[in-house]
Amino acid sequence: MTLQPIGVVRNKATRGRVDRDKIISKIIINPEFEEGLEGLAEFSHLRILVWMHRIDTEDRSALWVHPRGRHDVPMVGVFAGRGPARPNPIGLTTVKLLGIEGNTLTVAGLDAYSGTPVLDIKPHIPRLDCPEDTHVAKWMQ
Amino acid sequence: MTLQPIGVVRNKATRGRVDRDKIISKIIINPEFEEGLEGLAEFSHLRILVWMHRIDTEDRSALWVHPRGRHDVPMVGVFAGRGPARPNPIGLTTVKLLGIEGNTLTVAGLDAYSGTPVLDIKPHIPRLDCPEDTHVAKWMQ
Repeated sequence: MTLQPIGVVRNKATRGRVDRDKIISKIIINPEFEEGLEGLAEFSHLRILVWMHRIDTEDRSALWVHPRGRHDVPMVGVFAGRGPARPNPIGLTTVKLLGIEGNTLTVAGLDAYSGTPVLDIKPHIPRLDCPEDTHVAKWMQ
Repeated sequence: MTLQPIGVVRNKATRGRVDRDKIISKIIINPEFEEGLEGLAEFSHLRILVWMHRIDTEDRSALWVHPRGRHDVPMVGVFAGRGPARPNPIGLTTVKLLGIEGNTLTVAGLDAYSGTPVLDIKPHIPRLDCPEDTHVAKWMQ
């Protein structure tokens, strides 16, 4: 199970918490994959999968985490949180597509540092991705 | 960028299109990761990342696909579709959590064959994952 980067993130985020409400990012797709973007502009939102490359082997073995980085709430299992330190450090963000020009996407809301390898892009389809009658843990509300 | 399985899917789907509306699946988590499930039961829905293991190297090089496997609509770029044949064959489904017992999750709606390696589990958080004012391509509606 080996991955290949399809592109890279470029934005102003280099450290700390990424402000998803404000950040605009470029996703530069490797030229050999550019054709694969055809048709993507017909969707308003995309799901971006990235490789959280600053996570090292030790981080990948953590089984307990403070959700949302909050040290005032009890630790939970790694799969109940969404932080980068997890067995397979794949990041997943739903973003708003602002535009596509050649091999470059401009998106709003991507939770990733500049330089992060991009693994996949999938269209966001509310009918499949947004079920009704959901509830979330109170420490994640 | 190498992945490790955290568990495996067990269900009745072995071929053809998986009927997401009806299928119930077990996700058997490897014992060494079981602690990581703590707190997950407080969410109604999860996002499951899997490795679509039946995709071989040739499938991974496809750049054009028939969306939803429909040969009556024009081909689109691989990233505008959600099929398994893509550069990094990571599958992503939002499922309903029916229960957790020990290292076994029972979920509804998982789009994966029995035997598929599981890579990650993340809680579904509508506030982050379900933006408003979305639109999708007409061939994906």
